Formats: sequence, C-alpha cells, structure tokens
Amino acid sequence: MGSKTISSAVIKRLPRYYRYLGDLLENGIERISSKELSIRMKVTASQIRQDLNNFGGFGQQGYGYQVRYLHDEIGKILGLDAKQSMIIIGAGNLGTALAKYDFSHIGFRVAGIFDVRADVIGTEIGGIRVSSFDTVEVFLKEHDVQVAVLTIPRSNAHEAAERLVKAGIGAIWNFAPIDLQLDSNIVVKNVHLDESLMTLSYNNMHKGQERLSYSSYMDG
Amino acid sequence: MGSKTISSAVIKRLPRYYRYLGDLLENGIERISSKELSIRMKVTASQIRQDLNNFGGFGQQGYGYQVRYLHDEIGKILGLDAKQSMIIIGAGNLGTALAKYDFSHIGFRVAGIFDVRADVIGTEIGGIRVSSFDTVEVFLKEHDVQVAVLTIPRSNAHEAAERLVKAGIGAIWNFAPIDLQLDSNIVVKNVHLDESLMTLSYNNMHKGQERLSYSSYMDG
Repeated sequence: MGSKTISSAVIKRLPRYYRYLGDLLENGIERISSKELSIRMKVTASQIRQDLNNFGGFGQQGYGYQVRYLHDEIGKILGLDAKQSMIIIGAGNLGTALAKYDFSHIGFRVAGIFDVRADVIGTEIGGIRVSSFDTVEVFLKEHDVQVAVLTIPRSNAHEAAERLVKAGIGAIWNFAPIDLQLDSNIVVKNVHLDESLMTLSYNNMHKGQERLSYSSYMDG
Repeated sequence: MGSKTISSAVIKRLPRYYRYLGDLLENGIERISSKELSIRMKVTASQIRQDLNNFGGFGQQGYGYQVRYLHDEIGKILGLDAKQSMIIIGAGNLGTALAKYDFSHIGFRVAGIFDVRADVIGTEIGGIRVSSFDTVEVFLKEHDVQVAVLTIPRSNAHEAAERLVKAGIGAIWNFAPIDLQLDSNIVVKNVHLDESLMTLSYNNMHKGQERLSYSSYMDG
C-alpha cells in the first residue's frame, strides 16, 4: 500500500472520509465523483484525489468512487476491521461515559474497566464489573487488548501509563491533562478537553480578528 | 496586543503553555528561562520565544520569564479570566460527565443542562436540574451564556445548533460526529471522539512505519 510515507495530516483526514462515506452509504449513494465528495466535505477535489492516491487511489477516471469499496478500504487502513479491544482505566464520570459509549461501529469493544478506589471496584458500568487496577497486569496477560483509555487524574496518569506499557499495552488514548513521556514505540493520542475549551474560548474572544481556518473541522 | 495576525497553530499551543506554567506555579517555580521551559515542553526555545512574541513577548533577555505573570497573561489572552458560562445540550453519558466536570480552573461554569427526553427532564446532574430544550431560548434571554456544548446524537445536532445560534449563542463545543455548517461568525470547536480513536488505531496498526511526529501532543 506504500503507507510508509503517509503524512500525519493525511492520516488525520482519513476518519473524516470514513464518516462521510458512511453517511453516503446510509443514504443509499453507491457512487460519487471526487467533485461531488469535495463539495460535501468542503475540501478540494484535488486534495481528495491526492489523499487517496497515498493508498493506491480508489477511483477510476470519469467513473468516480465506489462508495462501499472506498469506505471499507479506508476502514481497513484505519484498522477498524480488526475487532480491537480496549480497557478503561478510571471509572469516574468520563470513564463511565466512554464505557457506556458504543464504539462497535468502528470495531472497538470495552474489555475491562479498572479503578483504584475501593468503593468503585465491584460496581458495574454498562454490564462490565469494575476491577482493581492491581489486577490489570494479570488481565492483560489473559486478554488481547490493543488500547488503554486513561481517564484518571493527572497525578496518577504517568505511573499508570508506565505500568500498562510494561504489561504490554502499545497504544494509549489519554484523557488526562498531561503529556505522557513514554517509549517512542508507544502510540499516544491525547484528548485534552480543557485545552480544547480554552482554544474555543480564545477563538470566541478574538472573533472577527481572523478568519477561522477550515482546519478547525479537522481536530479532535 | 497585535493578536490579529496570530496563526491557529500558535493559538493551539497556548493552552499547553498555560498548563505547563500552571504546573510550575504549583511546584513553586517563579522564574524560568525559555531554555528550561523548552526542555520541559519538548519544543525549541526559539519556538517559545516566537510564540510569545506574538503577544508582545513576556521575557527579559537573560532573566527568563516570570512564571506567574506569564501564566496569568496567557490566561487573559485565552479569555479564562472572563468567568464564562456554558450550557450543555444533551444529558446523556457524555453530557453528564461534562456537567460533573469542574471547569472552574479555566473560568467556566455550567449554567444549565437541556434535553428533549421527558424521562431526563427534571432530573438533577451535579446539582443542576435538566430543563427541556424547548426552554433554551428563554433561558438564553435571561442568562449570559458564551458557549453551548453539544452532546446529542448527530441526527439532532444540526437543528439544535441552528436554534442555539438563533438564540444568540456564538460558540459551540461540538461532540456530535458531524461538521456543523453554521454562519462563519459562529466559533465551532469539534471533539470527535470516534475520529480520535480511529487515528490512534491507524497509528497503532502502522507502528514503526513512520516516526510519530511530536504534533501528536498538540491535538485535542
């Protein structure tokens, strides 16, 4: 596929393509030209062609894209067909919300929820019993888990992340407001809600002083 | 302040400066050189100087930055001293989590929570009664609200956003998996959790095929 040289900007755009193509499928649209897709997505047709050419290209000149095929291929590129499992570390408000969220449409399921608080351990969230974080290493030996979701206070986040990595976790979806300093082979994706709200606040305060760039659609 | 020409890349970095400076304050550090700060933040000292020069610069050559002053000034630039209010639209799992989250350290409070579901209206979340979304226009006439947080299904998101905008909301923190098409003077900041997880999945699947760029610390 030649995916070795793909820029992170392209990668960030793939989930949005996937979402738009999923919408088209829902609406029964089977074929779309890059021009039509570009109008819907508000990016240039040339950008779409360039992005998709990174993966070998999926269109036939003059015939447009087969929506189902393109959707499924991008899904495969994103690893969404792999049936991945994640564990949630921290059964607080955000951890609970994520545990109850249905990620199955992008191929993820929650395999376990862990916390350190005695009053939380043993309770059920979305049909899953919260386990003691002390048992996470054993759990990871017995289960195939791709992603750990960190929804714990920042004071514990680093130590927890290091334990998870030592126990074999290779990817962390980090909601704690901290930059984790981990081995370079560990994939970390941050969702820093405070910082997102601060950026919104800035843009709202300074409204009109600059045109908002289209890239604001691309984050998160 | 000359903030008219500031790039969105700089703006995205400000919350991270704010967080690091807050950490320094917590640790009793009153003064820091751009070099020390750069080592902690893993960006170049020259980048820090350039970024801060957008706002007139805050350092004295050879003396470093006064942490408290720089922290508070960046806070002001971000509008965090403005005591802003937000309303949460959608009292589901994510809306509930955000309603219970304490955003007061960045100057935000939740003024109201709204939903359309009869069985949810009238319940309390974090001390706030959930109101009918039908009353949101009246509420916005009577209260000064800067930000609406959309945590509703995508099928309702666009219509709800348009009603909020019509009722005077100028900024939307959007968690619904949809690109809102609103007037260009409405500030929208998206947190697309599905897409964040998909990007993580991609990077984990294609690990080692490319060096993860440092920009992965900057998103969300």
